[in-house]
Amino acid sequence: MRLAATALAGALGLMGLGVASSTVAQSAEDIRIAEQLRDRALEGSGAFEIVEELTTRFGPRPAGSASEQASAQWGAELMTGMGFANVEIESFPLKLWERGETRVEILSPFAQPLVATALGGTISTPPGGIEAEAVIFETYQELLDQPEGSLTGKIVVVLQDTVPAQDGRGYGTSSPIRGQGPFEAASRGAVGYVLRSLGTHDHRFAHTGATRVGEGQIPAFAISPPDADQLRRAQRLSDEPIRMRLVSGAGFVADSHSQNVVAEVVGWEFPDQVIVIGGHLDSWDLGTGAIDDGAGIAITTAALKLIEDLPVQPRRTIRVVWWGSEEVSQPPPSQGLAGARFYADRRADDLEMHVAASESDFGADRIYSLALPAGAGDSDLRRAAMRVLTPLGILFDGAPATGGGPDTTPLVQAGVPAFRLNQQGMDYFDWHHTADDVLDRIDPEALDQNVAAWAAFLWLLANSDIDFRALRAAQ
Amino acid sequence: MRLAATALAGALGLMGLGVASSTVAQSAEDIRIAEQLRDRALEGSGAFEIVEELTTRFGPRPAGSASEQASAQWGAELMTGMGFANVEIESFPLKLWERGETRVEILSPFAQPLVATALGGTISTPPGGIEAEAVIFETYQELLDQPEGSLTGKIVVVLQDTVPAQDGRGYGTSSPIRGQGPFEAASRGAVGYVLRSLGTHDHRFAHTGATRVGEGQIPAFAISPPDADQLRRAQRLSDEPIRMRLVSGAGFVADSHSQNVVAEVVGWEFPDQVIVIGGHLDSWDLGTGAIDDGAGIAITTAALKLIEDLPVQPRRTIRVVWWGSEEVSQPPPSQGLAGARFYADRRADDLEMHVAASESDFGADRIYSLALPAGAGDSDLRRAAMRVLTPLGILFDGAPATGGGPDTTPLVQAGVPAFRLNQQGMDYFDWHHTADDVLDRIDPEALDQNVAAWAAFLWLLANSDIDFRALRAAQ
Repeated sequence: MRLAATALAGALGLMGLGVASSTVAQSAEDIRIAEQLRDRALEGSGAFEIVEELTTRFGPRPAGSASEQASAQWGAELMTGMGFANVEIESFPLKLWERGETRVEILSPFAQPLVATALGGTISTPPGGIEAEAVIFETYQELLDQPEGSLTGKIVVVLQDTVPAQDGRGYGTSSPIRGQGPFEAASRGAVGYVLRSLGTHDHRFAHTGATRVGEGQIPAFAISPPDADQLRRAQRLSDEPIRMRLVSGAGFVADSHSQNVVAEVVGWEFPDQVIVIGGHLDSWDLGTGAIDDGAGIAITTAALKLIEDLPVQPRRTIRVVWWGSEEVSQPPPSQGLAGARFYADRRADDLEMHVAASESDFGADRIYSLALPAGAGDSDLRRAAMRVLTPLGILFDGAPATGGGPDTTPLVQAGVPAFRLNQQGMDYFDWHHTADDVLDRIDPEALDQNVAAWAAFLWLLANSDIDFRALRAAQ
Repeated sequence: MRLAATALAGALGLMGLGVASSTVAQSAEDIRIAEQLRDRALEGSGAFEIVEELTTRFGPRPAGSASEQASAQWGAELMTGMGFANVEIESFPLKLWERGETRVEILSPFAQPLVATALGGTISTPPGGIEAEAVIFETYQELLDQPEGSLTGKIVVVLQDTVPAQDGRGYGTSSPIRGQGPFEAASRGAVGYVLRSLGTHDHRFAHTGATRVGEGQIPAFAISPPDADQLRRAQRLSDEPIRMRLVSGAGFVADSHSQNVVAEVVGWEFPDQVIVIGGHLDSWDLGTGAIDDGAGIAITTAALKLIEDLPVQPRRTIRVVWWGSEEVSQPPPSQGLAGARFYADRRADDLEMHVAASESDFGADRIYSLALPAGAGDSDLRRAAMRVLTPLGILFDGAPATGGGPDTTPLVQAGVPAFRLNQQGMDYFDWHHTADDVLDRIDPEALDQNVAAWAAFLWLLANSDIDFRALRAAQ
C-alpha cells in the first residue's frame, strides 16, 4: 500500500474518523482498503490512458466491423497484460450495417442541403432518393394522432426537442420517436421519416442511433437541431408546401461477427459468485466512441486493475465484460443487444451465481449517486459504501436501481440484481451519437473520480455478506 | 419621434446631461437624433429578421451560385421596399468553385476517417485520391524551415493552433498557413497538404476558407481540431510512419457571375459625398452564412433603415453594399475580393467623393470600440460619438483604423478613409467557416446593440464637417 494514498485521505478530511464498527458491520479492513482504492484512483486511475489508446488506435468501432474486431483483440491483450484471469474473446454472428451515402435536402420553397445522418439500421432509398412533400409535426404525439392512410406518399418530420436531464430521462422519453417513429409514419402511408436529432445541443451535429429493423421499414434520418429550427422557420416564412429529398445508401451489407471480451479478478472465497461490470466496445461510426462507450470500458477496467493490484483478493469474483454490438439493431428475430444476449444465453445455467451486475454506459463525467437493488437501502453495505463515497461528492439514491445499464438487461430479466453508480448526464446528449463523441470531451479528473467510486464500491460489494436476492424477496 | 426612445434614454442615465456645446461642436440636434436612433435600435432593430429571412430562404450562398444570385435579387427587392434610393444589382463574371467529395483518412498505423473539408479554391485529386506518408509539423515555421526537395512525395500536415483573440488577430496570424501553406509545401516537393482548422473551437467541425489559387497548387484540406489532436496522439502512440489518403473532387466548374447589391439614403446637402457601408452576401457552403456574413448585411441594412425612417435626411449620402464573392479566391490574375474590386473599379473616377468606408464582417456580437482614421482622435466627431456610444458599453480605440473590413480593401488602397466599429470576436472563430455558422449562433440583443452603434455613429458622421483626408494629411 502506498503511503501517498493515506496522505491524500488526510487531505480529504478523513483522518481520525476511525471506523464505527457498531453501525458498520462490514469489516474495518475492507473500508480501509476501499478508501485506499478510492484515493489511488484520484491520484491517476489509468482510465484516461485506456480510452485514449482505444479511441486513437481504432477510431470508430461499428458493431461487426474490422475495427471493432481489432479493438477486441487489443483489449484481450491489454487485460492479459494487466494480470487479469480467464481472459476470453467470445464471438457471435452479426449482420454488418453500413451507412453509405446520406443526403437530406429541402427542394422547395427554399432549396438547400441540411445536415443529417441516417438512423442506425435504416434502409436505402432508390438511387436518386425519395422526393415528397413534408408533413411537419412539432410533437410525436401529433404523429400518433393521425389516422391511417392520412400521410400517404408524404415525408414525415418530427421536430420534438429532447430535454436535458441529469439522469438522461429526456432521452428515454424521446427514444420511441427514433425507434418506433418510422413505423408509425409508415403505417399511415409515409414514404420517408426525418426527426430532429435526439440530442440536447444546439450545434450542427446530427445524432444517429438505432431504429427498429424489419418489415414495413421506411428510410429514416435525423437532422441536426439547427436544421430542425431551419425547417420550422421555412414553414413559417412560406405558405407553400415544403418538398424534400432523402437519399440513403444504408443497409446490412454482410454477414460478420462481433464479440465480447471477458476478464476476471477471481474471488478467493467464493470464486463462482460473480459481480459483472463493464461497458460496450462498439461505437457509432460518426465519432470515435470516446464517451459512448470507450469511457465505460476504461472506467470499469481501470477500477478492476486497481483491485487486481492489491496484495489481497476479493472474496467474490469480479468480471469485466467489454460487450460487443450494443448500439445497432439487427434484422428480426433479433432485437438488438446481441452481445449482451449472447453473454447471458451462454451462461443461462450460471446466472444464479451472478450476484450483481452493472454497466458504465453514460459518458465520462462524475458519479453523483449510488443506487442499490430494492431492499438494500438499510444495509451494512450501504453504510460502508456511503462512508467511502460521500467524500467524492456522491449521495445515496433514494430510489432502488431497476436496471444496470443496457447490456445488463438480459441479466436483469433473468433475475440478476443490478446496482448503479449514476453519472452526471446534463451534457451527455450534447455529444453522444454524433461526430463530436471524441476524446476531447473527456475530463481526466472527472474520469478518475468515476473510477474511484467504482473501485471502492466494488471492493465493498465483493467482500460483503449482502444477499440482494433475499432482500428483494423480502420486500 | 417616439416618446419611448426618450424614456429609454432616461433609463440609460442620459437624462439631464444636456449638450455641452462648448466641447462638442456637432449640433445638439444631431446628437439628440443619434441617441434616438440608438435607442430605437435597442428596442428592436429589425436586423435579426433580415438575417433570419436571408439564411432561411437561401441557406448557403457560395460565390457565383444560383443561391447567391437569388439572394441578391431578394435583397434588391427588400431594400426597394424599405424605401432606399438608387437600388441596383451590379453583376460581374466569376468562376464557380465547387467542393465535390472530400475525404481524409489515416491508412496506417491506425486506420480511420477524419473529419475534414477541402480548402476553398483547392483542386481535385486523382479519382482514387493521393496516398502518401504524412510529415507532421507542430508549427508553420517548422515547415518554412525545411529545405527544398525535402518533402518530396509527402503529405504535409501543420497542426498549429489558432489563438482566440477579441479582435481576431489570432486568425490573422494563422491565415498564411491556409493561404500560402500549400505552396510552401509544394515547393519542397509535397503532394498534398493538411492543416488543423483555423478555428478556436474544440468541436468536430472542419473550417474551410480560401487558399491561394494558381500554378503549383496541390490539394489542400483542413481537419477539425479534435482530428488534429488525434493525429498528434497517433504519432505519439506509434513509431511507424503515418500514411494518409486524401480525396478531393473540388475545382472551378463553370463560368458564372456574382453581383453587388447597392442601395442608398441620399444626402440632402452633399448627395455626391458618400459613406459606404455594408457586408458580404456570399458565404461558404458548409453553413448558412449567418455570422459570416448575413449578420453584417443585416446590421448595416437595419442601421440604414432606421436612418431612412427619420423625418429628416442626413447631409451626406449613406450607401449600403451587399458585396458578392468575398470568400473565394479566383484563378489568376484575380486574387479574390472580386465584388469589392468590381465596386471600386466601376467608381474609380468617383472614389474621392467616398468620404469614409466600413464593412461589418466579424459576426453578430456586440460592438466594444470605435476606431477612426488617423488624425481624427481629437475631433468633435469623436466627442459626439463617444457621448452617444459610451452608454452602449463602447470605448474609443486608441489605435487608428487602418482598414475597414475585407471588402473596403480596394477603397482603402485608393485612399478612402476607413473607420471601424469593432466587434467582440472571442467566439467568432468557434463557428466561422464551419457547418455551425447558422442562425442559432446569433443573439438578437447583441445584434440590436450592434445596430444601435452603427445607426447612431452613421448619423453623426454623415452630418459632421470632419474631413478625414485632411486630418490624415496633417499627421
